[in-house]
Amino acid sequence: MSWLLLFIPVAIGLEHWLPEQHIAIFAASGLAILPLAGWMGRATEHLAERLGEGVGGLLNATFGNAAELIIALVALQAGLYDVVKASIAGSIIGNILLVMGAAMLAGGLRYKEQKFNTEGARAEAGMLTLVAIALILPAAYRVAMGQGAAAGLVPLSLAISVVLLGVYGLFLLYSLRTHAGLFRGSHAAAAGDDEGGHEPWSVARAGGVLLAATVGIAWMSELLVGSIQPAAASLGLGSAFVGVFVVAILGNAAEHATAITVALKNRMDLALSIAIGSSIQVALFVAPVLVLASLAVGPRPMDLVLPGGLVLSVLLAVLISGQTVADGRSDWLKGAQLLAVYVVLGLTYFFIPGAAP
Amino acid sequence: MSWLLLFIPVAIGLEHWLPEQHIAIFAASGLAILPLAGWMGRATEHLAERLGEGVGGLLNATFGNAAELIIALVALQAGLYDVVKASIAGSIIGNILLVMGAAMLAGGLRYKEQKFNTEGARAEAGMLTLVAIALILPAAYRVAMGQGAAAGLVPLSLAISVVLLGVYGLFLLYSLRTHAGLFRGSHAAAAGDDEGGHEPWSVARAGGVLLAATVGIAWMSELLVGSIQPAAASLGLGSAFVGVFVVAILGNAAEHATAITVALKNRMDLALSIAIGSSIQVALFVAPVLVLASLAVGPRPMDLVLPGGLVLSVLLAVLISGQTVADGRSDWLKGAQLLAVYVVLGLTYFFIPGAAP
Amino acid sequence: MSWLLLFIPVAIGLEHWLPEQHIAIFAASGLAILPLAGWMGRATEHLAERLGEGVGGLLNATFGNAAELIIALVALQAGLYDVVKASIAGSIIGNILLVMGAAMLAGGLRYKEQKFNTEGARAEAGMLTLVAIALILPAAYRVAMGQGAAAGLVPLSLAISVVLLGVYGLFLLYSLRTHAGLFRGSHAAAAGDDEGGHEPWSVARAGGVLLAATVGIAWMSELLVGSIQPAAASLGLGSAFVGVFVVAILGNAAEHATAITVALKNRMDLALSIAIGSSIQVALFVAPVLVLASLAVGPRPMDLVLPGGLVLSVLLAVLISGQTVADGRSDWLKGAQLLAVYVVLGLTYFFIPGAAP
Repeated sequence: MSWLLLFIPVAIGLEHWLPEQHIAIFAASGLAILPLAGWMGRATEHLAERLGEGVGGLLNATFGNAAELIIALVALQAGLYDVVKASIAGSIIGNILLVMGAAMLAGGLRYKEQKFNTEGARAEAGMLTLVAIALILPAAYRVAMGQGAAAGLVPLSLAISVVLLGVYGLFLLYSLRTHAGLFRGSHAAAAGDDEGGHEPWSVARAGGVLLAATVGIAWMSELLVGSIQPAAASLGLGSAFVGVFVVAILGNAAEHATAITVALKNRMDLALSIAIGSSIQVALFVAPVLVLASLAVGPRPMDLVLPGGLVLSVLLAVLISGQTVADGRSDWLKGAQLLAVYVVLGLTYFFIPGAAP
Repeated sequence: MSWLLLFIPVAIGLEHWLPEQHIAIFAASGLAILPLAGWMGRATEHLAERLGEGVGGLLNATFGNAAELIIALVALQAGLYDVVKASIAGSIIGNILLVMGAAMLAGGLRYKEQKFNTEGARAEAGMLTLVAIALILPAAYRVAMGQGAAAGLVPLSLAISVVLLGVYGLFLLYSLRTHAGLFRGSHAAAAGDDEGGHEPWSVARAGGVLLAATVGIAWMSELLVGSIQPAAASLGLGSAFVGVFVVAILGNAAEHATAITVALKNRMDLALSIAIGSSIQVALFVAPVLVLASLAVGPRPMDLVLPGGLVLSVLLAVLISGQTVADGRSDWLKGAQLLAVYVVLGLTYFFIPGAAP
Repeated sequence: MSWLLLFIPVAIGLEHWLPEQHIAIFAASGLAILPLAGWMGRATEHLAERLGEGVGGLLNATFGNAAELIIALVALQAGLYDVVKASIAGSIIGNILLVMGAAMLAGGLRYKEQKFNTEGARAEAGMLTLVAIALILPAAYRVAMGQGAAAGLVPLSLAISVVLLGVYGLFLLYSLRTHAGLFRGSHAAAAGDDEGGHEPWSVARAGGVLLAATVGIAWMSELLVGSIQPAAASLGLGSAFVGVFVVAILGNAAEHATAITVALKNRMDLALSIAIGSSIQVALFVAPVLVLASLAVGPRPMDLVLPGGLVLSVLLAVLISGQTVADGRSDWLKGAQLLAVYVVLGLTYFFIPGAAP
């Protein structure tokens, strides 16, 4: 996938000489992020391996969605809160519908039935329900209060963000320490897995790659974020569709590829952990960090109020994915169901004209 | 039940000589549909038996709800889209609450506990969740967009209908072919079951009965559909109540009787398959076919936007029935719960004055 | 806990000499209710033991939430229907989130994993879903109909209340008689349990204590209810927050203490039965009794329409608690999840200015 790095100079060149070619800039910077996110993931894995299981697990858990976080931080700084929120919701939905659905479908085409640890999957599904509730309440609050009482939304969002970060800390404690056994088979590093008996990189090399990839992603994100709205307009697409579906698919491409690969090896515990774990990380870690970060880097504080359609989409995605993993087995139809829900959601957003509801 | 065929001439006579007796026409045509639907089901079973398992299963899956489909097509042609939508929602709700509830209650009064195959039931419950999502999204879209953006609703409905038909095809592939084992014990033909060792009808006889019953149902449906609104008005009932509850109960009477019969024989797999399978068929096959058919036979294209109250009812019915079947066992209290939810829904619609929300 | 009885004279004295000290009156009367509810529970247990298992179980089931019922009846008589509804919703939410969450967390800190009977827990969770549906529908009806059609709400509420009482009767029949085995280990009287081999009180003594405690709770409730709104105003809190959270926590303090105690003894069946059973009792018995009682003692009939925010809160609490108990095991993270949802709900209501939505 490293040849996609070629899109870095392409994106920079386009931005410099053809700044009106928004679609091309969007596409080039989006494609350039893919290999950078891959390198970042690989560097994190190697660093984690060097630093030992405890710190390493924490590192994975924190930097696993670093690409999404960087894209969102760039959009946050530019004040594009709609894009930030769309990418948060899109990432949650995309991981549990598209990534998990594709993994179940791919695995199910090779194996008639695949089993996974119910207890770990249920614990993760419970987290997603908590996430859905934490996103529904501020949105319901705004509906109930109307425009008049918007003053309460920012302190409420800050308070909920702190609770979510606390819950994320507890979840890490649970899954890495007190009940790590429930997640056995799902902690193996995905990248390290592919590379077999290779030696982990030195701390210096891993740190250097991590730094370089971060800088690269930040740069590409700036081009990407700047071109989302004009590119969407040129394509005649709503910016909600682009934010929720296109950007999120780009941001999760690495998880996507890994989850399918391990599902084909009949390691569904790991595939689910990647898909659901990534959703949990975005919702319980990335989203509250962005809300808190908006106090420092944003033009004004950002609240946690997603547009109604996105909240509904997250809720429905959480409902069906929770039902899907509850019985500890998957087959191709389950995968197809999740993908069908993703397609129906995508169609709904596709036909929405203009701005997101 | 064949003596109910007497209501065919009664309904025709009333329509001819006493066209103002809407309640009588409604009752007579409704009762006349019951035995016709029974004959249609029987003919389908025999034909299916003659044609072998693969084609036969497909035939059952396609014509299982032919009576509902014919009633709805007649209403569609008359442009009564409210009636069509009410009967779709009523049929989904009625099958998973009334039919399944009555089967679980009846079976539970005879047996302390009844077991069924969890995996098949869960796969069906997952389908219902997908259905609920596919119905919620267009309704939410309309709420979000307001009246202004109604233009997108028809293409969105068409696109979702195509997805639903595709999912239905996959579900047939799954339940009849790749994972037929999960549904073992639920494919036995219900009618053939009662008739023991009898010889199946010849293809000609089965085809003839099927044709005659279809013509009869179509004729009776025309009288029924034409009298719904005046009959509801005369009775002081909202037409939503009549559409969602009365028409749906008539349309599902055959499933109802069969499901209770097999539940009393402790064959819960078959009872559930009839109840949930019928809901799935209405939602994934009948509803999208009606949307597509409206392009050809309706006065204007029909969308998939159910009124908010119906969407909510479908969602709640799907939620509780999914929870009910998840653990693979039933008893009388589960049946009573489902029936209580049906009664509460019925009461809510009963007290709604005038048109449906 | 008996020393809290000292707050009875304190509350009465404050009300008499310092009637403007609303916060102090609220606090004193609230604290005085705690030991009275404890005595009432103990008297009910002893009476139940004397009267034999059948009548005794019924007595427990009916008087288990007598304190809540008395508080609500006092508020009903005063026409404070907002307070009544807030305390109903608060009690349902508080039992399944706060009480169950605290029990799971406390138990989970001592035991790595605790098991309980899935079938009983699932039957109770199904009841909660039924409750949520019965509360959602009238609220949705009002939204759909607008202010114009409010006339139907009272008859609809009465009809639903009768259905709920009937379902409660069936649930008692199920859990005490036909399927008592599913709840084995959860019927042991909590108080009797602690007192080991003690002799039960005589009927006269138990009846006397019951009567005295009832009179005391009624008196204290009058002070409590009268001071809720001014106390909330003085504290700068919304009355919804006080009704839903503070009053409900006071009313459920006894359940709370018992559930944690038995969870620490690894008797999760009993802990869950107390928490969920109490929610079921409030929703299926207390709430409909209050609706029916409003015809006799209230200034006007009370409907079952909770404010939208409360209906949503009940639905979300039912969703996550149903998911939590479905697999028959608990650990500390599950408890922390439920508590986190409770905190997020509390925060949302805390930031709501003025009246409840």
